[in-house]
Amino acid sequence: MEYQAIPLLNLIEQFEALPGIGKKSAGRLAYYVLQMDDERVAEFINAVTEAHSKIKYCDICKNFTEGDICKICDDNNRVTDIICVVETPKDITAFERSGNYDGLYHVLGGLISPMNGIGPEQLFIKELLSRCQANKIDEIIMATNSTVEGETTSMYISKLLKTLDIKVSRLAYGIPVGGELEYADDITLRRALENRNLM
Amino acid sequence: MEYQAIPLLNLIEQFEALPGIGKKSAGRLAYYVLQMDDERVAEFINAVTEAHSKIKYCDICKNFTEGDICKICDDNNRVTDIICVVETPKDITAFERSGNYDGLYHVLGGLISPMNGIGPEQLFIKELLSRCQANKIDEIIMATNSTVEGETTSMYISKLLKTLDIKVSRLAYGIPVGGELEYADDITLRRALENRNLM
Repeated sequence: MEYQAIPLLNLIEQFEALPGIGKKSAGRLAYYVLQMDDERVAEFINAVTEAHSKIKYCDICKNFTEGDICKICDDNNRVTDIICVVETPKDITAFERSGNYDGLYHVLGGLISPMNGIGPEQLFIKELLSRCQANKIDEIIMATNSTVEGETTSMYISKLLKTLDIKVSRLAYGIPVGGELEYADDITLRRALENRNLM
Repeated sequence: MEYQAIPLLNLIEQFEALPGIGKKSAGRLAYYVLQMDDERVAEFINAVTEAHSKIKYCDICKNFTEGDICKICDDNNRVTDIICVVETPKDITAFERSGNYDGLYHVLGGLISPMNGIGPEQLFIKELLSRCQANKIDEIIMATNSTVEGETTSMYISKLLKTLDIKVSRLAYGIPVGGELEYADDITLRRALENRNLM
């Protein structure tokens, strides 16, 4: 493809490095960007810069937020004695979309994975424990993906919480085993919430 | 989705506006960008800016290029008396990838489409005629997509070129009717080149 101009090749490469974007899609996107007007390009670049520089972790639940505290933690209408523990902020969008949960969340920021050198101390687990000690918590729902790492992390946290005498439940296997939480449909997610089991 | 931070929503919206990116992919890309380190973000933004500001139309064939003349027009090893006429610079990549063509190209920059208010004067058609008058051209291969607009444009240009006494051919219907040139596989493209018909 050496006949193509270098800046174009660089742009294609950058798009190809994004998740779920193959060679052809990357080319399509790059050519599309070339044909956008200056204003649209500025808007796009601005959105990337703003999001990357302004978004940080919520002081309480570690969800992505613009302020110090995310909109969910800051919402007085949510039930505050139940916390749903997820791997990433993206997982929260699945629950919120389904509209079947009105408690709070806690984002771990990853899963325990010795293979990848990720131990409990690199996740927001101690922050979860502090929340449980500082607030009246009735139940913790473990909602990590049903992968080996997800189960391991869930078991690990469950044991820690039981020493604090807190009820811990696990999402029911309504979600397909080995599947990603992010792609679960709303009904499956509701079933999984309804059938959660004590651990 | 109002619980998400504004800069994040803006970024998702920007990705969703790109071709072939749906709601879920846009979310996935936005969350991915948030987790890139500063250097990667700078690289990405730089690639977009550079490509958009440095790439322009080739003085001769209207392909995308960094200099005044694209690498294909500037290549002494190409056959110069045959020109393949395509809709967009993207279409050139399909021919170059298949490796079955060593002539030159001419990019129209669109197709005649009265429905969208695009007439012949908005395309690089007069530039094609000038090229044909200024150089010894043996044959013009019309390689627009096999859509109504593609056929119309092809017929229109063919008539103009015949008044100049230039041989005009059309890619054979090896390419699937109604399909996009961009997605043709290499063998289909070779067949289409081999079986091209005089118009």
